[in-house]
Amino acid sequence: MPQPDLDAQLAFLAEADKLKSVDRANTLNDLSRQENSAEHSWHLTLYAMVLAGQAGPGVDIGRVIRMLILHDLVEIDVGDVPLHSAGGQAHDSPEIQQAEAEAARRIFGLLPPAQAAEFLALWQEFEANRTPDAVFAKSLDRTQPLVQNLTSDGAGWVKYGVTYDNIVSRVGEKVARGLPAVWDELHCRVRAFFGLA
Amino acid sequence: MPQPDLDAQLAFLAEADKLKSVDRANTLNDLSRQENSAEHSWHLTLYAMVLAGQAGPGVDIGRVIRMLILHDLVEIDVGDVPLHSAGGQAHDSPEIQQAEAEAARRIFGLLPPAQAAEFLALWQEFEANRTPDAVFAKSLDRTQPLVQNLTSDGAGWVKYGVTYDNIVSRVGEKVARGLPAVWDELHCRVRAFFGLA
Repeated sequence: MPQPDLDAQLAFLAEADKLKSVDRANTLNDLSRQENSAEHSWHLTLYAMVLAGQAGPGVDIGRVIRMLILHDLVEIDVGDVPLHSAGGQAHDSPEIQQAEAEAARRIFGLLPPAQAAEFLALWQEFEANRTPDAVFAKSLDRTQPLVQNLTSDGAGWVKYGVTYDNIVSRVGEKVARGLPAVWDELHCRVRAFFGLA
Repeated sequence: MPQPDLDAQLAFLAEADKLKSVDRANTLNDLSRQENSAEHSWHLTLYAMVLAGQAGPGVDIGRVIRMLILHDLVEIDVGDVPLHSAGGQAHDSPEIQQAEAEAARRIFGLLPPAQAAEFLALWQEFEANRTPDAVFAKSLDRTQPLVQNLTSDGAGWVKYGVTYDNIVSRVGEKVARGLPAVWDELHCRVRAFFGLA
């Protein structure tokens, strides 16, 4: 019996495979290669499980995890725009935001309409970064590359000439917003990395 | 202020990074390289979200997703044992099961004790494959590589000399247990792949 919804879902899942070929700025901890956005997304979901106890009131970890599973799929069309590229400006530019919004419509649009709308809304909520779930998810998305850099000789930071002040202003504030106790600890480690007292 | 639980959690999350270097039998859809177990785990969580409507009664998709996030971490110590290696026998051997159980104790044991126990129990439930959540998760874990093979010229099947009958007996039964309608569709595609009417 024909199953048109299933055909659409399998086509979406095949398209999603391309996220495994999108490279990010940071490396694996052993410096063997760049991290890709699919395995980064998996690592983030594990961060969410492990650091669930740090979540503020009103955070639904299940929704956070679903946001994180979806959050980078737009990079299949747009690529990863490193946080520290172009002096930290490129990442949030209107051009990138528009390209990502178009990518979201195309990629989630492969799904049956009701599911496409549900996934698109979850991705838009993440991007808007206003609900407790989105704020926690965004904080995790800033925390994981910070930790990756700390455990891999700052490979991504060296590549983009990132300073201590860049990290505090571009990363610290967002980590602290959803994960204040984690930022306290990581801030100490960042200071030590840069040889500050 | 010292945060010993957070130190343990960050050490666990750094250890988990190693799953990105565990290669699997199947390739990416574009045949560019082997898939690794971290990105496979991410893809599986997306399968769970997309195919949630196929889940039988009593399945909690949030728990299924958490199982899938954790399910392959033992491969950091044991490696991926391909389903079709050694005539399909090696994958479920008592030696592999024991090695994986030891790996689970070591790796989850890096976490604070209560969280270690929670994650270990979830992994054990997945492995035992008896609860509705575990059955659905295991079915997804058989479905994704089947689809990867179908969309990448059967690269993993060719490598291990896998026949149509092997797929029906080693994969089909487990897919059908949790995802019967999906198996109906994939069974047709497998028959077509092998040139069967």
